[in-house]
Amino acid sequence: MKDVQNQKDQRNIYLNEVGIRDLKLPVEVKDSAGRWMPVTAVISLSADLKGAKKGTHMSRFVEILQRNNRMDLRQLRTILEEIQAKLDAENSYLSIRFDYFIEKQSPVSGLRSYLAVEVENNASLCGDAFDLELTVRTPVTTLCPCSKEISEASAHNQRATVSITVHTEKFVWIEDLVKIAEQSASSPVYTLLKRPDEKFVTEAAYDRPMFVEDVVREAKQMVDQMPEIGRYAIEAESQESIHNHAAFARVVGDRSEREDAECTH
Amino acid sequence: MKDVQNQKDQRNIYLNEVGIRDLKLPVEVKDSAGRWMPVTAVISLSADLKGAKKGTHMSRFVEILQRNNRMDLRQLRTILEEIQAKLDAENSYLSIRFDYFIEKQSPVSGLRSYLAVEVENNASLCGDAFDLELTVRTPVTTLCPCSKEISEASAHNQRATVSITVHTEKFVWIEDLVKIAEQSASSPVYTLLKRPDEKFVTEAAYDRPMFVEDVVREAKQMVDQMPEIGRYAIEAESQESIHNHAAFARVVGDRSEREDAECTH
Amino acid sequence: MKDVQNQKDQRNIYLNEVGIRDLKLPVEVKDSAGRWMPVTAVISLSADLKGAKKGTHMSRFVEILQRNNRMDLRQLRTILEEIQAKLDAENSYLSIRFDYFIEKQSPVSGLRSYLAVEVENNASLCGDAFDLELTVRTPVTTLCPCSKEISEASAHNQRATVSITVHTEKFVWIEDLVKIAEQSASSPVYTLLKRPDEKFVTEAAYDRPMFVEDVVREAKQMVDQMPEIGRYAIEAESQESIHNHAAFARVVGDRSEREDAECTH
Amino acid sequence: MKDVQNQKDQRNIYLNEVGIRDLKLPVEVKDSAGRWMPVTAVISLSADLKGAKKGTHMSRFVEILQRNNRMDLRQLRTILEEIQAKLDAENSYLSIRFDYFIEKQSPVSGLRSYLAVEVENNASLCGDAFDLELTVRTPVTTLCPCSKEISEASAHNQRATVSITVHTEKFVWIEDLVKIAEQSASSPVYTLLKRPDEKFVTEAAYDRPMFVEDVVREAKQMVDQMPEIGRYAIEAESQESIHNHAAFARVVGDRSEREDAECTH
Repeated sequence: MKDVQNQKDQRNIYLNEVGIRDLKLPVEVKDSAGRWMPVTAVISLSADLKGAKKGTHMSRFVEILQRNNRMDLRQLRTILEEIQAKLDAENSYLSIRFDYFIEKQSPVSGLRSYLAVEVENNASLCGDAFDLELTVRTPVTTLCPCSKEISEASAHNQRATVSITVHTEKFVWIEDLVKIAEQSASSPVYTLLKRPDEKFVTEAAYDRPMFVEDVVREAKQMVDQMPEIGRYAIEAESQESIHNHAAFARVVGDRSEREDAECTH
Repeated sequence: MKDVQNQKDQRNIYLNEVGIRDLKLPVEVKDSAGRWMPVTAVISLSADLKGAKKGTHMSRFVEILQRNNRMDLRQLRTILEEIQAKLDAENSYLSIRFDYFIEKQSPVSGLRSYLAVEVENNASLCGDAFDLELTVRTPVTTLCPCSKEISEASAHNQRATVSITVHTEKFVWIEDLVKIAEQSASSPVYTLLKRPDEKFVTEAAYDRPMFVEDVVREAKQMVDQMPEIGRYAIEAESQESIHNHAAFARVVGDRSEREDAECTH
Repeated sequence: MKDVQNQKDQRNIYLNEVGIRDLKLPVEVKDSAGRWMPVTAVISLSADLKGAKKGTHMSRFVEILQRNNRMDLRQLRTILEEIQAKLDAENSYLSIRFDYFIEKQSPVSGLRSYLAVEVENNASLCGDAFDLELTVRTPVTTLCPCSKEISEASAHNQRATVSITVHTEKFVWIEDLVKIAEQSASSPVYTLLKRPDEKFVTEAAYDRPMFVEDVVREAKQMVDQMPEIGRYAIEAESQESIHNHAAFARVVGDRSEREDAECTH
Repeated sequence: MKDVQNQKDQRNIYLNEVGIRDLKLPVEVKDSAGRWMPVTAVISLSADLKGAKKGTHMSRFVEILQRNNRMDLRQLRTILEEIQAKLDAENSYLSIRFDYFIEKQSPVSGLRSYLAVEVENNASLCGDAFDLELTVRTPVTTLCPCSKEISEASAHNQRATVSITVHTEKFVWIEDLVKIAEQSASSPVYTLLKRPDEKFVTEAAYDRPMFVEDVVREAKQMVDQMPEIGRYAIEAESQESIHNHAAFARVVGDRSEREDAECTH
């Protein structure tokens, strides 16, 4: 059977990325207690393509994923190395998104429940330089300092999302980035709150008013204490309760001395 | 050229609906001041199909829409009648969704700005019985009465959406349903607020705490005053600022004495 | 601490539904081999509210879900019964959506891979009448009979979705509805196909051209063979490869002799 | 009334971006015939914030947008300059997304209809260096060369999207990027096709099989002919009709000799 993909391409144009996207698969990720947690992942996997080749072999991406369904740091790198070997590529890329559940206790009554946070791993292997970018999006509450200051009583508050993206060569626990996000906001949010908890959360948020600007500054101070992190970006976005649009703030930084492994794509 | 759709179908199975969906087109709708307002519509158009016919002629749906881009009540009915005639159908259905802009003034400084509300028209012609279902989704603020009652100060509040769906044979202005939604909530939301407006909105919401249950009960009392309305459904959904999930309430009613025109589909 | 929700409501307006929505939780569902499969569920849970009561107790919905994370038919009913008891309600409603993975073999080389289908369970308990509505959305291929007939070679084809919704008092396997969907289309889709498989799938689809009208008629004939099913709806939607909109067909039916358990909401 | 935002911030942390997001407004954009076309825009507007300042004044972003609703190249720059002046900022950013309608004629019968393409303008003013990034996403058809080669008849084909992103100091017509996208694929897609058109499109696609790799290479050769363009990225994504995931290819390039105006954010 003819291998059309393997034909010589006369245009001789190098392609930065060729691959598959939006593939849903059941995989397992490790939580901070060392257990493997089943998640539903949305996966993108790709590699660069030499100018002389007409096409890549898309089915090999799927075959490699089928054999590697426990995704830790070592596994991500293994997948990228296999991609380079099987597809004769210089650079390879893997993105995996999933909802991850944090078990939390309500602040007064101590009731346990699960909170979903959104996680995204973007790993790349450029030649033999490995880079991992981890993003965790944590829902929180923000209460507006201006509204509190100028109003007779109360202040507008709302659900907000803190997104922390870090580049790292070592492992960073999802749980640690969730903690930073929650400590930077007016209050964490919870899945299960009884009335004494609701009173606590309402009052705690009023005692700790935070603009989105404040949230990212608080988070930055904590991220700057993490020695395992290189480049990072921190974003807070409030679903404003008095508007139909969002307010956001963003800060980027770099704690690394090394040049980051990176390939243009 | 052979007309495959027109072939006789041996299975002889009647189909309730056949048509097109998710078609984006620029159309115009009338605002309450009588002006034609350009909107970007997402359209679905369909009809039933006799058991003896293999297929419908999909391109005729598009042709009819191309000729009718000013969508008022009469036009909706005209489109449905043309569909029945051109496709030899008993029943026809049209759904059109769009963002509609309301010009609002901020409560203290009187500044003007636009607020987007989501509108959906579902029209059907079953035989010659016409029915129009109009849904308007208005963003508002809700402030929790329980949180206010039990807390030393403040109360959790958040953006919420009030969805009002009405069946009507006459015309109902989008603007009137937006007003009902805003008057049922703790406060309207605005696109542009200066500090004196923000103070006003914060205090107004605190003075008027509303569960989602309260919002739909308030709205129901107002909808029950509208003589032009038959069946209706009212829903309020709060993007809880202390949780990562929503709270909602829903009430349905029927002011009409007539049996509603309806075809099962 | 004051119980605001429990206060008497002077408006005395009955509410059809009050509850929570868009709650993500990790749950387990049974596959047709009897194993418990972990999924990420998006859940809605609600009940009606008497006119005399100001509000429902939202935290109880979450507490009941926390205790019941293995969702089979009996469990769904148990949750709805607990809701009625704890919230003094006549009617209760549970909706749970998740991606479910089917293990499939490619048609020639026999390689195994997972295919995600979307599943939705809508359960209701109206008084003591239980109703379960199960929807399974299966991706398939459709190839246009008209395009094949009129063209010198080839025919436009595309990814399509077959949605089968059934009401049932007994259990229906997700796998069985997926099979009906795949047998009704021009071809199933697969996550992993090598070249001999791709040749097979391409030729199989060309040998079996299907309008969306054909797909729902084929599926209806198979659903009509299932004795455990009452009311049902079958829909096929093609993401037309020659248009930027979708084509769809829909048929509804009812195999039951009983009046369906149903409460207006 | 106290100006909380204007207070001194002791943490002294510079923020790369502070602003508003997901604001829907009606605006007008110029088509290639010089007419102003009404669109529904989703807008983000932001600026950097000095370390010494506690917060930005969010309402000013909205005020500036209210005064500038005709968005051409000059206008985008004016908005960014006003932002810098009113908010005492060094850098400012504007993103505006909308559906844009192209009037097209079917290839044989010459019938006219509208096709929606997705457009995104990202403008930045870093100091006084202006940069405009324009992205146009055009729906097309791709037909698989491998499937055609190995199969007795037909080939799998599907709807695909070609995304062309260009940086430019001058004006680039949306219509020109749509043309490049359509000429790079197996066939354009159309909103209205009669049977002779459908025959033409089916056969044209079969005569011109294209991998996603081919599509981006064809498009790159055309983009490389446009003297007004600096950096660019071209992506093609096929909604594979035989899989439930997408295949994609991506190439980036830079035709400019200048260093691009850019601020890290």
